[in-house]
Amino acid sequence: MVAKKVNEDLQRERARCDFNIEELTNFLDWGPQYTDRRRKLEQRVLSVKGLLDDIPEEYLSHKEKYENAIRKSALLYRTLQPYDDDGMSEDELAKANFRNMVSHAVFRDNSPFSLHFTMFVPTIVGQANEEQKACWLKRAKNMEIIGTYAQTELGHGTFIRGMETQATYDPSAEEFVLNSPALSSYKWWPGGLAHTANYCIVMARLYTRGKSCGIQPFMVQLRDEETHMPLPGIKLGEIGAKLGFNTVNNGYLGFENHRIPRDRMLMKNAQVLKDGTFVASTNSKLTYGTMVFVRVMIVNSMANLLAKAATIAVRYSAIRRQSQPKPNEPEPQILDYVTQQHKLFIAIASSHAFSINAMWIWEIYSSVTKQLVAGTLDNLPELHALACCLKPITTTDATVLIEKCRLACGGHGYMLSANLAQTYGLATAAFTYEGENTVLLLQAARALVKAWGLLAKGQPLKGSMAYLADKTTIKSWDGSVNGIIKSFQIVAIRKLSGVVTNLEDLKKSGLSPEDAWNKSSVYLTAASEAHGRAVLLSVYKTEIDKRSVTMSPPLRMVLHQLVEMYAVYWALEKIGDLLLYTPITEKDVAELQQRYIDLLEKIRPNAVGLVDAFDIRDEILNSTLGAYDGRAYERLMEEAAKSPLNAEPVNESFHKYLKPFMRGKL
Amino acid sequence: MVAKKVNEDLQRERARCDFNIEELTNFLDWGPQYTDRRRKLEQRVLSVKGLLDDIPEEYLSHKEKYENAIRKSALLYRTLQPYDDDGMSEDELAKANFRNMVSHAVFRDNSPFSLHFTMFVPTIVGQANEEQKACWLKRAKNMEIIGTYAQTELGHGTFIRGMETQATYDPSAEEFVLNSPALSSYKWWPGGLAHTANYCIVMARLYTRGKSCGIQPFMVQLRDEETHMPLPGIKLGEIGAKLGFNTVNNGYLGFENHRIPRDRMLMKNAQVLKDGTFVASTNSKLTYGTMVFVRVMIVNSMANLLAKAATIAVRYSAIRRQSQPKPNEPEPQILDYVTQQHKLFIAIASSHAFSINAMWIWEIYSSVTKQLVAGTLDNLPELHALACCLKPITTTDATVLIEKCRLACGGHGYMLSANLAQTYGLATAAFTYEGENTVLLLQAARALVKAWGLLAKGQPLKGSMAYLADKTTIKSWDGSVNGIIKSFQIVAIRKLSGVVTNLEDLKKSGLSPEDAWNKSSVYLTAASEAHGRAVLLSVYKTEIDKRSVTMSPPLRMVLHQLVEMYAVYWALEKIGDLLLYTPITEKDVAELQQRYIDLLEKIRPNAVGLVDAFDIRDEILNSTLGAYDGRAYERLMEEAAKSPLNAEPVNESFHKYLKPFMRGKL
Repeated sequence: MVAKKVNEDLQRERARCDFNIEELTNFLDWGPQYTDRRRKLEQRVLSVKGLLDDIPEEYLSHKEKYENAIRKSALLYRTLQPYDDDGMSEDELAKANFRNMVSHAVFRDNSPFSLHFTMFVPTIVGQANEEQKACWLKRAKNMEIIGTYAQTELGHGTFIRGMETQATYDPSAEEFVLNSPALSSYKWWPGGLAHTANYCIVMARLYTRGKSCGIQPFMVQLRDEETHMPLPGIKLGEIGAKLGFNTVNNGYLGFENHRIPRDRMLMKNAQVLKDGTFVASTNSKLTYGTMVFVRVMIVNSMANLLAKAATIAVRYSAIRRQSQPKPNEPEPQILDYVTQQHKLFIAIASSHAFSINAMWIWEIYSSVTKQLVAGTLDNLPELHALACCLKPITTTDATVLIEKCRLACGGHGYMLSANLAQTYGLATAAFTYEGENTVLLLQAARALVKAWGLLAKGQPLKGSMAYLADKTTIKSWDGSVNGIIKSFQIVAIRKLSGVVTNLEDLKKSGLSPEDAWNKSSVYLTAASEAHGRAVLLSVYKTEIDKRSVTMSPPLRMVLHQLVEMYAVYWALEKIGDLLLYTPITEKDVAELQQRYIDLLEKIRPNAVGLVDAFDIRDEILNSTLGAYDGRAYERLMEEAAKSPLNAEPVNESFHKYLKPFMRGKL
Repeated sequence: MVAKKVNEDLQRERARCDFNIEELTNFLDWGPQYTDRRRKLEQRVLSVKGLLDDIPEEYLSHKEKYENAIRKSALLYRTLQPYDDDGMSEDELAKANFRNMVSHAVFRDNSPFSLHFTMFVPTIVGQANEEQKACWLKRAKNMEIIGTYAQTELGHGTFIRGMETQATYDPSAEEFVLNSPALSSYKWWPGGLAHTANYCIVMARLYTRGKSCGIQPFMVQLRDEETHMPLPGIKLGEIGAKLGFNTVNNGYLGFENHRIPRDRMLMKNAQVLKDGTFVASTNSKLTYGTMVFVRVMIVNSMANLLAKAATIAVRYSAIRRQSQPKPNEPEPQILDYVTQQHKLFIAIASSHAFSINAMWIWEIYSSVTKQLVAGTLDNLPELHALACCLKPITTTDATVLIEKCRLACGGHGYMLSANLAQTYGLATAAFTYEGENTVLLLQAARALVKAWGLLAKGQPLKGSMAYLADKTTIKSWDGSVNGIIKSFQIVAIRKLSGVVTNLEDLKKSGLSPEDAWNKSSVYLTAASEAHGRAVLLSVYKTEIDKRSVTMSPPLRMVLHQLVEMYAVYWALEKIGDLLLYTPITEKDVAELQQRYIDLLEKIRPNAVGLVDAFDIRDEILNSTLGAYDGRAYERLMEEAAKSPLNAEPVNESFHKYLKPFMRGKL
């Protein structure tokens, strides 16, 4: 293809950017070595023939989408396989993949193999004993078998204890008998379960010797390896079309007296002996680690999805011109409208804030994991509570801001070829999976209320909760970023102490603790949110301060402008809290409003540079509006040409229906 | 089909509802006669064979979706045709259709004929002269021709003056020559334009005698009536897949020296004489009326979409049980969680608020239209400004609340069979069409700033703006609904006066008026929003007070509970504004928070009754989660069975790709 000319407005924007874009890319990648690795990986994948679609997914039928996804998944896996281990440590590998979005170029949503890698293999690693690992791990890693992970049921999601799938041990046969006692106990949602996986780790309630022994993991073969037919007693299918993830092949699964050998229960932790004796796990807190890990990954993935949306919307806003406020002057770029800057720049800053928080927790998580191995679990509850706040906050903000980016692109944002709607679909799914957001905020609230109780008993708090012990008050408003952080901490403390008092009052009035909790729950989630926002902002600021020391001055300046804008934006969003709990005055608020507009103005010249620094290749961005060259209108028209409806000037429905209809004959 | 048993939780909910559901339905329908008519219409449409899909739309390819939509559109039109005029006045007909959503049963999004009825025919009525009407109106009304309306271009939407399509008058041939001078001037978006319509009203810039004479409407034949082939000089196609509206056949259109006779310019207002003389329209304000009409309809349609979402989410929350806060008790209905009530009840109240505001503006609009006919235009600017506030506010709230309803259904809300994602798709489109929301808020701001100036000159303000003149202040917080309304008015006044001062300061500091406006624009939109919210709440309260006088006491009570909850909800949402501009104290805020929770508790027993009263038939609701019988899990499974992927146990991609892949041969 002949290189097309880059839009002149974008050229001008790039010329005025005053920091080193590559330096920022390297920073976001956690170091130049990871930028380099990511680019090589992208180059390798994107040069494979057949991985990128000629006809966009959205024109295919549901069935064709699946078949196409299977074809591409096999090809993608073969392409990526030699890269899997690289001689890097697990920690390095995880860091290297923080900003790896190359699969977005292949699937607009996701692959039917994804749960194989993210859940099936890791669960074998984490929950199988050594013999079981020897049996399954190599086959799974080589994809001689394809697996998935089935936990959620039609009737039970976040509340795991409610799950109904039964695994009843039969000592005479040394087998478990799997049953789905009701429709509500059918497994529902697992990716790849419908027609792809032939194995599955099934979470089921164990019954042995007539007693219920909790939810345990079982390795279940679903389909014959030769014919792929479902095995007897196994009812499988796909759950149907969804808002997103339509190539993921999410399935349902029911059991009718399906028998599996005893050694199919994964027995690294709890065990069932031959005679049916149940041996409980010694440490139930170990699973916390995985949950924290997954939630860190979600925070990071929100940063990546936001980076995509911001890139698309900022570049489009630089080339789109609209209206004529001044007579005889050309229509301005819409990026020059302050209302547009207000919608978009916060998305850039939020992506940075989430990335940096994810990096920060990752480092704590790595060190906590080492302590775990050494048997120390002290820091886990606080880390778990923090993840329970940050996952809901970041998924909420990301969905809101991605949607703002889409709407900021006007009607064209509604086109699927813009790839903003699909980005939203991916982000909003995270609102629910891995713990529904409201439930998580209430879990975090439980930890916070407990911590508040410890504090009352004079015990110190650790890490991200330490500030709760701070009794210093502020006499007058301090609008510096650190002042705003301090105010956010005071807000969190006041909200927490208020709701704790409220809980106690309700209990004194005769309510049960559970009813008092329920009645306070709206304000309990608000306290968790306030805590999470205080931490998020404080980590963003502290880490940028620390990590920017060695940066060149122009980059340092723009990153600090973003931190300041982020702080002022949230101060104004939460101005009611600040007015309630801090000495801020009406005049201070007016100053904050003025300062916010000034910050938008300062960031404006670097806006395109900032999104360029996310360094998302066109194939991964997959957007008519956001491509590097800014040829948005041309690309919209080129994409439209791919619609199969445009292959013929007259659709056959004209002859079949329209013509007879217009002649009054239908 | 054998009637299935209604879920027991829902039966219990219905038994405890303490008001007359039918009475509320009649109220929402604007009278029992309209309930009756709506139900008969629904019955008629829903009993036609072939109008409801056997295979849900989402499983079809893009092309199949279109072909299926054309088949159904023809059938639907033939079914509805005898109902079109009924001997009702236009006003009655409009009222009767306020809650008519029967087409939602036929299309999950919309029909390719929709612009024919909503734009093509009305534009002929409004803009064609008598000869032109004689020529086109009967054919159009009978659908002997199918039309659409083309205004938006690839490069120009809300800013109409920027449109580039040219219609140059050639007096020698007495023809207009249509041209699209650049890619950005291609028409883009009109529904039905791609492969359906054979006629189109095209808005183009008129040039005659070498001069530009504004944007004018032209009747253009697009396709041959016999062959449906595009005519010479006309380039047509579809624009591609979108977030929603995928059966609407949105198209693009470009012209290359396409000639049309002089009488194809619609000449009720402006005219071009044979010799090329341009005769301008005498009254440019007349088009305001149509804009107001369309925006009232949008407010009303947001009420309807919200009613759908609330019905689905509330019923599902009544049958879904989750968690076990109290040991040895069953899992509660999730509707008993206060956090869930907080997400859902505001959707019910907002639907009422929007319905009632739409009714109220409709009545003003009807009387203003009569004044228009009589030549009085005094009330139009104020009404126009109000519509410019209410359209953005209601579309924003509706999209946010529909999404809350979806997320409140957890993972199952992500299933398309729940019909929440599609409802969102319809609502969010309104964010952009008929005037982008931010642009409209700024238009309203311009009217408000102007009104503020008149006030300073001692002139009185009318209608919804009259309160701006109110100089009375409040000494202490009054938490009654009327007190909250008064506070919201004070907030609007303070925001407006603040931003006017800011504008003046910026101009004094040397900025041009346009730059000052841009720099204040974030706070100008905030002032418009504050104005709109004050009006919305005040109308909701006043009209419920007025209209509930004749209601039976239990219904009156629940409607007032909803009004109060709505007022308190918004007071808490905008607590920062109240703290800044009213004497509310921290203690008052705590009382409001407590009162809000108490109101949720009062509304809880009637929640299912309230959504039942929206009276949306299962076929129209089209939702596995929200059906009247509450068989959500059964319906999810029944819908999944319709997926073509589930027709065979092993998909062919296993043999083609998966098996060789797992054997390492791919």
